[in-house]
Amino acid sequence: MALIVQKFGGTSVGDAERLKNVALRIAATYRDDNAVVVAVSAMGRTTDDLIELAKDVTTSSHPREMDMLLTAGERISMALLAMALDDLGVPAVSFTGSQAGILTTAVHGEAEIVDIRADRVKDAIDEGRVVIVAGFQGVDPLSRDVTTLGRGGSDATAVALAAALGADVCEIYTDVDGVFTADPRVVSDAQKLVEISFEEMLEMASAGTGVLMARSVEFGRRYSIPIHVRSSFHDGEGTWVKEKTMEEAIVRGVAHDSSEAKVTIQGLADTPGIAAKVFEPLAIAGVTVDLIVQNVSTEGYTDISFTVPKHQLAKARESSESIVADLGAGGVDVDENIAKVSIVGAGMKTELGIAAKMFRILSDSDINIGMISTSPIRISCIVALDRIEDAVRALHNGFKPALAPQEESL
Amino acid sequence: MALIVQKFGGTSVGDAERLKNVALRIAATYRDDNAVVVAVSAMGRTTDDLIELAKDVTTSSHPREMDMLLTAGERISMALLAMALDDLGVPAVSFTGSQAGILTTAVHGEAEIVDIRADRVKDAIDEGRVVIVAGFQGVDPLSRDVTTLGRGGSDATAVALAAALGADVCEIYTDVDGVFTADPRVVSDAQKLVEISFEEMLEMASAGTGVLMARSVEFGRRYSIPIHVRSSFHDGEGTWVKEKTMEEAIVRGVAHDSSEAKVTIQGLADTPGIAAKVFEPLAIAGVTVDLIVQNVSTEGYTDISFTVPKHQLAKARESSESIVADLGAGGVDVDENIAKVSIVGAGMKTELGIAAKMFRILSDSDINIGMISTSPIRISCIVALDRIEDAVRALHNGFKPALAPQEESL
Repeated sequence: MALIVQKFGGTSVGDAERLKNVALRIAATYRDDNAVVVAVSAMGRTTDDLIELAKDVTTSSHPREMDMLLTAGERISMALLAMALDDLGVPAVSFTGSQAGILTTAVHGEAEIVDIRADRVKDAIDEGRVVIVAGFQGVDPLSRDVTTLGRGGSDATAVALAAALGADVCEIYTDVDGVFTADPRVVSDAQKLVEISFEEMLEMASAGTGVLMARSVEFGRRYSIPIHVRSSFHDGEGTWVKEKTMEEAIVRGVAHDSSEAKVTIQGLADTPGIAAKVFEPLAIAGVTVDLIVQNVSTEGYTDISFTVPKHQLAKARESSESIVADLGAGGVDVDENIAKVSIVGAGMKTELGIAAKMFRILSDSDINIGMISTSPIRISCIVALDRIEDAVRALHNGFKPALAPQEESL
Repeated sequence: MALIVQKFGGTSVGDAERLKNVALRIAATYRDDNAVVVAVSAMGRTTDDLIELAKDVTTSSHPREMDMLLTAGERISMALLAMALDDLGVPAVSFTGSQAGILTTAVHGEAEIVDIRADRVKDAIDEGRVVIVAGFQGVDPLSRDVTTLGRGGSDATAVALAAALGADVCEIYTDVDGVFTADPRVVSDAQKLVEISFEEMLEMASAGTGVLMARSVEFGRRYSIPIHVRSSFHDGEGTWVKEKTMEEAIVRGVAHDSSEAKVTIQGLADTPGIAAKVFEPLAIAGVTVDLIVQNVSTEGYTDISFTVPKHQLAKARESSESIVADLGAGGVDVDENIAKVSIVGAGMKTELGIAAKMFRILSDSDINIGMISTSPIRISCIVALDRIEDAVRALHNGFKPALAPQEESL
């Protein structure tokens, strides 16, 4: 008997019919002689509706009460899902994050799972029940207040539960067939990956591949839980995210991200500790900095450029302007018309000339590179927003990302 | 500094505007140097909407999951109310039934409060906060499952909290001005009672006066918590329900109830234990029997009549038919066209001839009496459904229920 954790997002349980279909799928897994634990999101637009309702009442921020409010959403979907399973003759029980022992930090709206005390979940499994756990939520053990995990939180719930229970696999059901070598909406011949390593998936997720959030991949990596990203519409195999893949592809995929903007602080005196003086105030202001590039110093002065989410741009600009004033720098320049394209692959660790080939491919397509950032298994370039799709297509065509061989998938 | 528990029902928090008005009222009480604990119901139609949603998913009964589902409703209203108070500069915190330590029996949908461990509520009061507690819900300490209290549950939450906290008063806010000497929709000169004793209010509630549920009155009586039933639309005094009233009115009020039907089992052999043989199977079938009348035995045979809620009539008829078969009785007769009219007053304990006067008044109005039932402070008659309003008016006019004197109210 295997222990399988399944995660269904809000779209999968968007209405009564879909929810009953999800119940059928869970029941089939259970009848295949598996123990099944399910993490479920709030139905369809529920969370958005609750946020709207809060906006009718208040214009201020009330993080604790907002979490109390939003966690009503999963409560509804999980109870209904347990009912639907019961109707199929599958004994089921629903637990809130708190009841499932999901302990988190105290940061309302962006809490992180620190531990899972899954005794109740285990007891229910031992009783032969399917356990439905509310995604996206937990409890801060010190204040005993309810918390939410922020965007992609239900994925994190699922993978963390799988880790805590020592599950054989964590299945993430989604509206696409798996992880692709590039966004299929941009690259028509993008292909579904059979498998991808945790490290590669982490880089892909950070580089803009939205199908799986980086934090849930990190959980899977840390506790060696294979993650199967698959379609909620059919039974076909999706993409396995796992420890090691059969073959180290040089380039596993091309990712892109158009959600960021570039900020440049010009004319900084190039003294030791200058980067800290720039980025500490940004961190305190709550700005999430992604890429950072510092230009070579010219006559003792340098420019520092970094990218931030567009929705944090106002905050980033404000912070940067006071940094400029404090440090007597030259000024702040902001560019919203940028996007990031990345190639990701574990094979590039040992392969020379991959970066050079990437720059050449972009250059051959007359695409200027604004910033470059690299990790051992990823190279990212900032390009003009209106050229991003050309860049993705050119790189996908130039590298022809390697699919892991079909017959060696799990 | 007084400690005041306030209860607001679903209509009072029906939308964002009303909810903000409720917050203003709570804030005013808090600023009058009171500690305030609030029990709140789900917003407007939320509970009904959730029940509808469950009907889309399942046609079976899932008591545990239904409670999980329905408790989402108060979670939403209480979080929003805490936000609205915070916006008014009043520190507030919301607690679920479980967080507020409301321990109940395990009967999902109809749980009863057995204890309140209000440590978290007390701590929050000590921190100067207004505490918003979810009405209608609690937790079974053995299974640690969420429960709901059934109809009128939020009133029970409020009064039980008031008892546990040793509150000075429990204020029940409602859409009427208080408890009236009769239903003002039936009797145009019905008057608002200034005060009424717990015993009288219990009889009035059981006899059909819907403004306060019997179980919450019982809590108030047991723990001597004065209950102030008052309007959520204005600041005027409502009705005080309390230990003793200034004056024992002979008749405090006239109550009526059109929600019941009468069942008669005919031709029962009048042997010892026959009543038990009739009512045990009904209890097992979950039928709530109200009035019971056994006729005088004729030639060793008797009839037993009883009233049940109309919505339980099918169940009651089925049960009764098997009782008839088991006991070899004559048959079952069912009458849905009945209603109950009652007069209630502590003064009738010591006053002779009240029942006779009641029967005379009904007789003078040509109203037939089908069944009679009495308690020390109440007399109820079953009459034809189409004469119930005439009966209420005639009795209200004949007895002119005594209002407690205005100047002696609290």
